[in-house]
Amino acid sequence: MAQPIYPEYPPELSQARRQYLLTNLKDWSIAHGLAVRPAPAFVPSEQDPEFALATTAPVTLFPSLFPKSCFEEGLSIQTTYNKLYSAIASDEEWLKPIIEELLDIDSFVEDLWKVHLAVAKDGYVQDLTLGLFRSDYMVHIDSSSSPAVGIKQVEFNTIASSFGGLSSKVSALHQHLESIDAYPSHKDPLIPKGSGVQSSSVPLLATGLAAAHMAYGNSKESRPLCVLFIVQDPERNVFDQRHLEYELSSSHKVRVFRLPFRQILTDTKLDTDRTLLYHAPHDPDTSFEVTTVYFRAGYSPDEYNGEEDWSARLHMERSRAIKCPSVLTQLAGCKKIQQVLATPLSPHLTRFLPNRSEAERIEKTFAPIYPMDLSEAGREARKLASDSESASHYVLKPQREGGGNNIYRKAIPEFLRNTPESHWPAHILMEMIEPPAQKNIIFRNGELQKGGVICELGIYGVCLWKNSKPGGKSEILENWEAGYLLRTKGDQSEEGGVAAGFGAVDSCYLIDI
Amino acid sequence: MAQPIYPEYPPELSQARRQYLLTNLKDWSIAHGLAVRPAPAFVPSEQDPEFALATTAPVTLFPSLFPKSCFEEGLSIQTTYNKLYSAIASDEEWLKPIIEELLDIDSFVEDLWKVHLAVAKDGYVQDLTLGLFRSDYMVHIDSSSSPAVGIKQVEFNTIASSFGGLSSKVSALHQHLESIDAYPSHKDPLIPKGSGVQSSSVPLLATGLAAAHMAYGNSKESRPLCVLFIVQDPERNVFDQRHLEYELSSSHKVRVFRLPFRQILTDTKLDTDRTLLYHAPHDPDTSFEVTTVYFRAGYSPDEYNGEEDWSARLHMERSRAIKCPSVLTQLAGCKKIQQVLATPLSPHLTRFLPNRSEAERIEKTFAPIYPMDLSEAGREARKLASDSESASHYVLKPQREGGGNNIYRKAIPEFLRNTPESHWPAHILMEMIEPPAQKNIIFRNGELQKGGVICELGIYGVCLWKNSKPGGKSEILENWEAGYLLRTKGDQSEEGGVAAGFGAVDSCYLIDI
Repeated sequence: MAQPIYPEYPPELSQARRQYLLTNLKDWSIAHGLAVRPAPAFVPSEQDPEFALATTAPVTLFPSLFPKSCFEEGLSIQTTYNKLYSAIASDEEWLKPIIEELLDIDSFVEDLWKVHLAVAKDGYVQDLTLGLFRSDYMVHIDSSSSPAVGIKQVEFNTIASSFGGLSSKVSALHQHLESIDAYPSHKDPLIPKGSGVQSSSVPLLATGLAAAHMAYGNSKESRPLCVLFIVQDPERNVFDQRHLEYELSSSHKVRVFRLPFRQILTDTKLDTDRTLLYHAPHDPDTSFEVTTVYFRAGYSPDEYNGEEDWSARLHMERSRAIKCPSVLTQLAGCKKIQQVLATPLSPHLTRFLPNRSEAERIEKTFAPIYPMDLSEAGREARKLASDSESASHYVLKPQREGGGNNIYRKAIPEFLRNTPESHWPAHILMEMIEPPAQKNIIFRNGELQKGGVICELGIYGVCLWKNSKPGGKSEILENWEAGYLLRTKGDQSEEGGVAAGFGAVDSCYLIDI
Repeated sequence: MAQPIYPEYPPELSQARRQYLLTNLKDWSIAHGLAVRPAPAFVPSEQDPEFALATTAPVTLFPSLFPKSCFEEGLSIQTTYNKLYSAIASDEEWLKPIIEELLDIDSFVEDLWKVHLAVAKDGYVQDLTLGLFRSDYMVHIDSSSSPAVGIKQVEFNTIASSFGGLSSKVSALHQHLESIDAYPSHKDPLIPKGSGVQSSSVPLLATGLAAAHMAYGNSKESRPLCVLFIVQDPERNVFDQRHLEYELSSSHKVRVFRLPFRQILTDTKLDTDRTLLYHAPHDPDTSFEVTTVYFRAGYSPDEYNGEEDWSARLHMERSRAIKCPSVLTQLAGCKKIQQVLATPLSPHLTRFLPNRSEAERIEKTFAPIYPMDLSEAGREARKLASDSESASHYVLKPQREGGGNNIYRKAIPEFLRNTPESHWPAHILMEMIEPPAQKNIIFRNGELQKGGVICELGIYGVCLWKNSKPGGKSEILENWEAGYLLRTKGDQSEEGGVAAGFGAVDSCYLIDI
């Protein structure tokens, strides 16, 4: 880490300029909805029980530098990634043995799988699936390879890929700040004015939801149609989601309702043909037919607190609404799948991407990932992870989604000593990506934090596909790249989720290196 | 007051619908910058010293009902009002005796007048003036006249006419809430869906500033040009102003800086030809030439705390920048002028509006206003105001701007008994407008207030005029109506300024009555 590939950036700020920059940032962000509901540490919930306050979302003051070649590679392979994951999610035969290996050690995967089995038993009644994906990368420097700079995938998100709403806003913020000369002029010819990139994630993701809504077709009973956003309640990152909703309703004239996960069984029911009907509490006499269920909740084990929550998920999955994503698509995003694909010499990638050059470009973005099981690769991994010297190049990650609980480098051996060996296969061992360090200033909760940062590039992808019978070949109806997210965190922290309290949303200044 | 001319409105809200409406209102408003920095009563300033928090601006949950004929009359006479006030501001000869009457009793008017005299002595170097006006009305019911319903002017604002930014946003909010069926359907045929009116105040006011900027011409020294917003610091209503700035910079490519009133002398200077130069603290090496000074501060006596503040105002007035407004234009808006025009049988209106039908339409919007001096009309006023029965139809207002300190109805006689007679002429006596009452719900500081409300309609106007020598005839270069504001307050309160802590921004549902 911290290899100095970037020029001196950002330029120093005089006190007056920092004040000018910050005042403009704070006002522009609120005027344009680059906002979150404040964290309890900033505003205790008893002070604002109705969530009437808001604050600027955690953002960087400057766009961060990002190698242009890496950025363009990420964008250009996204449609191939969409193809790969839609194919995986459609291939129950291939998924089954991999998922079954996890059942005993990851009850969340087990419960999701049970939902799939229960629906498969009666038969799925909707053959379309929508993916709003995000593939996350870091720049990786390896002076022994050529080119020495490339992108390595951190993870592939198949459910609740967040920050598509705020991402469009933060790149517009940085462009505004540049347009009012809030940044001191930097003489470095590597960073000409106008190197910033606007992210079009809001219109591109909303168009994905609109495409699913259209593909669903009309209501046989002539009911009014809607899209449901399944959400957490309360949700501090609500404006991120609202920007997609507003785009969907204003540009595509699609009705959208937000339904808290806990209210699914109360407010929806299945018609005899498993059409999903929504009865809004404020308008109980109207029966809306749900074309598309967009999950911004239900992705993490701690959201399921018993049978009722799993019944709710099953209820959605059984329905005739298009799911974004289906349970199988969510499972396709689990880290075990990433590991299986990225295990050195794995034969799996070509099953889904028979075109050799496509498969090779994807493969180049994999950091080597090992299982922690008793396979040949797994035994090698256990050796690497137990020795503190070799472990220092690795991270140990739980298979399941949602961030948190990663074990880094020299902490791995001790963690394994305190964990029963039977639980080791619930993790994967991944070679650490060594990103270049740079500096930036993060504004969050009304305070500035200055220092070394590392950046994670997320590329959004939209994919709508048809899968007439599970195990059959999927047919892609829509497939496009959908803008980008740059998330930036202090280089002290090894976690990357802005919503979880670390890091900030950011945008890219592209540079040639 | 409280005559029931409106149908049953707004419809009752179930608890679930109120929740739905409010959640959507809170999220949409923050996502679109319909916001203010929170009041200290909501968030103590020590909790958020850097002003990082924001909250929904005080708004009504429903659009309020407004008679269509009244709304249209207000819009259609605005260009005549613009003509009237630009002519008044250009007619020093006419203004002089009226203002001089106030000098001994209103030190604020006196100080403003001194600024004008000082500049006039050396000669003005800018013959263009910009007005961003707002004419405020209430609906007045008088069953003895025909039609029984009309608008009466409350005041005419010639400086710092606020809420043009939020006004466009609140009408868009109400249209959004209607589009998602947040309002229960109302069966009354008087209020069909789609009766709401979008206010275009943001683009129309920004275009006014852009017109002045263009009319200023190029810098002789090829300096970069800018518009200065003179502002209070801190300013809770900052987003209202920012929306005009963002429109001006994005649609018209005009550079805008915000300059706190207190920083005028530090950050600006006059070149030898009185060109106004701005040196931004964050960029002290660049010399911006100011085309237009837009005052959102400096309108109220309590902003002037000594010689230095008056020097700052004089400094601006002497400059070659176009003022929005000039000191004479600000003085033209003082209540004494309104009173002179509206004194029954006054000959003044036709001096400025020789076209008889134009003058008559304007005159119809005047509520009778009496001076409190020793003229014939003034002696009549003193009689009316001292008797508690007759006083109950009147309001006693100070001559100067800024709201507050009005004395209503039966409180007038006692106020006069406790005020030396020599100070009486600092006030005017105005017949109370009797607006119809209706109901609405106001959301402010995270709380709902439900009850009877009265509404005040403000019509914005843009006027750019040329006045080659003071006293000469003015030539109008640009003149248009610029959208509307509806401000709504509880009918308990007799004050109308939302920023001062009473009332809310609102939009109109037009009805035929």
